[in-house]
Amino acid sequence: MSVADPVANLQALIRCPSVTPAEGGALTALEAMLKPLGFTVERMVASEPGMPDIENLYARIGTDGPHLMFAGHTDVVPPGDEASWSHPPFAAAIADGELFGRGAVDMKGGIACFVAAVARHIEQHGTPKGSISFLITGDEEGPAVNGTTKLLKWATDKGEHWDACLVGEPTNPDVLGDMIKIGRRGSVSGKVTVHGVQGHAAYPHLADNAVRGALSLASALMDPPFDAGTPEFPATNLEVTTLDVGNPATNVVPEKATFAFNIRFNDTWTADTVKAEILRRLDEAAANNPLRPGRDATRYDITWAERPSHVFLTRNDALIGSLTASVESVTGKRPQLSTTGGTSDARFIKDYCPVVEFGLVGQTMHMVDERVAVADLETLTLIYGDFITRWFADAVVS
Amino acid sequence: MSVADPVANLQALIRCPSVTPAEGGALTALEAMLKPLGFTVERMVASEPGMPDIENLYARIGTDGPHLMFAGHTDVVPPGDEASWSHPPFAAAIADGELFGRGAVDMKGGIACFVAAVARHIEQHGTPKGSISFLITGDEEGPAVNGTTKLLKWATDKGEHWDACLVGEPTNPDVLGDMIKIGRRGSVSGKVTVHGVQGHAAYPHLADNAVRGALSLASALMDPPFDAGTPEFPATNLEVTTLDVGNPATNVVPEKATFAFNIRFNDTWTADTVKAEILRRLDEAAANNPLRPGRDATRYDITWAERPSHVFLTRNDALIGSLTASVESVTGKRPQLSTTGGTSDARFIKDYCPVVEFGLVGQTMHMVDERVAVADLETLTLIYGDFITRWFADAVVS
Repeated sequence: MSVADPVANLQALIRCPSVTPAEGGALTALEAMLKPLGFTVERMVASEPGMPDIENLYARIGTDGPHLMFAGHTDVVPPGDEASWSHPPFAAAIADGELFGRGAVDMKGGIACFVAAVARHIEQHGTPKGSISFLITGDEEGPAVNGTTKLLKWATDKGEHWDACLVGEPTNPDVLGDMIKIGRRGSVSGKVTVHGVQGHAAYPHLADNAVRGALSLASALMDPPFDAGTPEFPATNLEVTTLDVGNPATNVVPEKATFAFNIRFNDTWTADTVKAEILRRLDEAAANNPLRPGRDATRYDITWAERPSHVFLTRNDALIGSLTASVESVTGKRPQLSTTGGTSDARFIKDYCPVVEFGLVGQTMHMVDERVAVADLETLTLIYGDFITRWFADAVVS
Repeated sequence: MSVADPVANLQALIRCPSVTPAEGGALTALEAMLKPLGFTVERMVASEPGMPDIENLYARIGTDGPHLMFAGHTDVVPPGDEASWSHPPFAAAIADGELFGRGAVDMKGGIACFVAAVARHIEQHGTPKGSISFLITGDEEGPAVNGTTKLLKWATDKGEHWDACLVGEPTNPDVLGDMIKIGRRGSVSGKVTVHGVQGHAAYPHLADNAVRGALSLASALMDPPFDAGTPEFPATNLEVTTLDVGNPATNVVPEKATFAFNIRFNDTWTADTVKAEILRRLDEAAANNPLRPGRDATRYDITWAERPSHVFLTRNDALIGSLTASVESVTGKRPQLSTTGGTSDARFIKDYCPVVEFGLVGQTMHMVDERVAVADLETLTLIYGDFITRWFADAVVS
């Protein structure tokens, strides 16, 4: 097998059943691809009380700058009902030009292509003029506690330093070349409990319906919009994800209602300022509850989910310009520079170096029959290879 | 024992543990009081598939009009934790001027007083110039399926006809003489399910959050007010009694939200017109859902609870005037004519004859240590007796 072939690389990775937290042989398979190319490969096991140990991998070729990091994960989500798959989820079968298997696009495919691109680059140009490293975790689809954050700190403590990072997550909505992600919105979640006074539905003036308060407070969070978006980011958006009372009696006015929300915020805000705005809206709605004139402010309490995700936006011409030029050169499409979508491990990496994300088409990720067009694997390998050449030509050691 | 003594009557009734659906000896005890007075007493057992049989009682003295009906129930709610009672709930103990027991005010006390009042009337004036009947059910605190409605139909089918009815439910909030009930609001309950589209909280434009729709629809039902009240009725009021989504995942936009509501409506509405207004508000809010411009109307479905309670208002000078005069004559207080509070069996009786409600002070009903002041039993007996005399003096056979 030649590691310059992304299809063979991907088949080898898919055949390792590395459902989080299992390593499943996937990192060992990757190590076997990288060592012959000249990479120094290190395995790092991360531990946390009460959680399973997680294996991670860090590999580097070269000793000087500029230093380009490729980041990703070999762990995959569970296959679900295996009987529903057209081909077994860990068989890596190819049919009608598509390669089937869990992780095909999210994101063993991205790793397979970058390995092939590096192999071809070394074959054509020799060892890169700077360094290339792989920062690969086995805990991206899980709690992400023993993954990228610990791996970054571990490597930095050893003296590692990077000038740029490419994350190989699937970023294209429909066609390879659609979209590069250059940032992500932040995310904060919370839970509000509204306290009313229980009573009989026929005597509402003696009660204080917690549903009324919850409706006012939840509505105040969802409307009006937090902002109209910024040049680089879509509008901040808050969704109330659940609201629960659990009162079975139609003649009883309930005393408690609880709702949860999640906000995805752009660079108009920080996690702290967006929390302050949420509290301001809740307090205003509580004080002005228009449905019960003369009553005191709605009583509520709020708890915030741990560890908000911070918003980030990458501004780095060498990185974004090289990648955009490579995508356009190979596919003929000018990719959109986007900050849409959920969070990714890029939110941790951005504290260490400029980071962008580009990978396969994400349509089948996490689904039964996750699969990738074999042709896309070759195209992505060409894009990654072109990018490596361009980036080392443009990059400046920071 | 003399049935002219309301205290002895009430003790006899309380000592029959007639928790719905059990007869518990209560109707037998009542029959034993009425027969010596000259009443013809009939017991009627009502049946319904899948429900326990219920015993009811109908008793009449006299054959001509005018015909006055006294209506009520001998069944009681469960005592709850008997150990919490100061005196056993079925012992009818008297302590510090109060008679303790389940049903003391709701509403064996009302029956005991009316029996005593009739006994004294017959003793003083002889057989009434018209007829007096007792229509007593054993299924008021339960599902009320085998109770007053069936008993009314059964009696009517036998040729019974009434000119007025007094229901002996506790009507006074604080002091005997506070309040006569001359009508009740109607009540309608329903359940709305809002159907959205599930999705990821980071891609809300691909989803349709059912919570947003539910907030809009529920808010539209609670605000603005349905009316400002009428001369005889408080304002119509709707309470959303529960709202439930049950979505545990903060990054998932939920596809379904369900809420239940109960509306108490005055004589501005009928059950049909208030349902139509509710549907109009829901449809308007669904079409105008301001939180998602450009989206189709919120999809929802609604189910109505069976058998709405219809609003009613009694306008009958002989009945209301006599009772008001009797209350004022005995207590020195002019009672408020009220339509507040929940539903009662009067809503069924109003289809047969004018009906009002007056009984004891309701403060301890359904509570541990339900009890009545012994003095109130004598006062209520005097009011009932005065009312019987006045009503027969004023009443016209309809």
